[in-house]
Amino acid sequence: MTKHSPTSHEASASNPVLEAIVARRSIHYLKPELPEGVTFDDIYHIVQECVKHTPTSFNSQVNRAFIVRGALHYKIWDQVVNKIKEPEYRARPLRIRDGAYGSIFFYVDENVTERNKVEHPEWAPVCEAYADQAMGAASIAAWTVMHNMGIGCNMQHYGKYMHDPNVLPEDIPSHWTMKCQLVFGVPDKDPNEKKFIENIVKVYE
Amino acid sequence: MTKHSPTSHEASASNPVLEAIVARRSIHYLKPELPEGVTFDDIYHIVQECVKHTPTSFNSQVNRAFIVRGALHYKIWDQVVNKIKEPEYRARPLRIRDGAYGSIFFYVDENVTERNKVEHPEWAPVCEAYADQAMGAASIAAWTVMHNMGIGCNMQHYGKYMHDPNVLPEDIPSHWTMKCQLVFGVPDKDPNEKKFIENIVKVYE
Repeated sequence: MTKHSPTSHEASASNPVLEAIVARRSIHYLKPELPEGVTFDDIYHIVQECVKHTPTSFNSQVNRAFIVRGALHYKIWDQVVNKIKEPEYRARPLRIRDGAYGSIFFYVDENVTERNKVEHPEWAPVCEAYADQAMGAASIAAWTVMHNMGIGCNMQHYGKYMHDPNVLPEDIPSHWTMKCQLVFGVPDKDPNEKKFIENIVKVYE
Repeated sequence: MTKHSPTSHEASASNPVLEAIVARRSIHYLKPELPEGVTFDDIYHIVQECVKHTPTSFNSQVNRAFIVRGALHYKIWDQVVNKIKEPEYRARPLRIRDGAYGSIFFYVDENVTERNKVEHPEWAPVCEAYADQAMGAASIAAWTVMHNMGIGCNMQHYGKYMHDPNVLPEDIPSHWTMKCQLVFGVPDKDPNEKKFIENIVKVYE
């Protein structure tokens, strides 16, 4: 094992995909609109492509999603607001309900995970982690593309406040598990500076 | 809830970040080189930026990584080859050992996950899933950038064949958990056509 001596990283310094990954931020203050030139079908196209093309263990393609705007977006987030009793925790879902244009709900299909466990018993203990890894990749990929197109987004984890069959679309299968919610609109305020903690990447050769 | 009528998705159809996500593939046949103009420090820069800028729950920044090439890459994958007894399962690690230029080992820091559980007890049951989601996002982001730069990659999950203190760098902390291995080099063969199964994205409004 020898110590690595730095050379240069010109080729990656200006890569547009890496630049988009670095630029992506949480935009918490949104207007309930889409940027000029962006349609609701752009959102659908982005989510569909990210769900379809994100790699998954055993090519099992475990990711699912649904997208809403309008009355159903309001109804779903209004439910979250009403289920939260502490006033200080209602501010965020209220801001989402009234400020975001729409929401994307990312799911994993548990039937796929169960099939992976049966077909690959040696890896059964990590099949759920694999599904989470793929879900994280698909949802953050969509977020990165949307940010790159000027759409403001923030990612939420309010799953446990979501499960009312009178509010969620009734044709969402019960074997889908909701993992996160990506809400979007037109940025209304710049994000604060991000605080970095420690992000260790070591090199050996 | 009304039926959605498609409009158009011109704005997203040619987005370079989405194009890179769609184009990323597993390249299983590699030469142990880097593409012209790409340095080992480009790999470091890409991984460092993806690890640093991938969003994490509670901004906990749980991702870690190390990168190897040369003798240590060979030694680590030779260990995997030797631990696998079935000849048909040795072909892949052999191909990685001899064909890839280097390897990136992605980890989560369990100390961070444990701290998240203590500081956010309401979410403790999902803190490990959050870490996997962030880890999947960081590793696939790096893979997408590298593919976009002409670097061939494939993602592996040989963690359980890796844990020999005589082979792994001794300063990797024991509270890091290795989650996956991204190996890279110069593409030596195009990937096969990918089979898509079902990737459901629904729309409501």
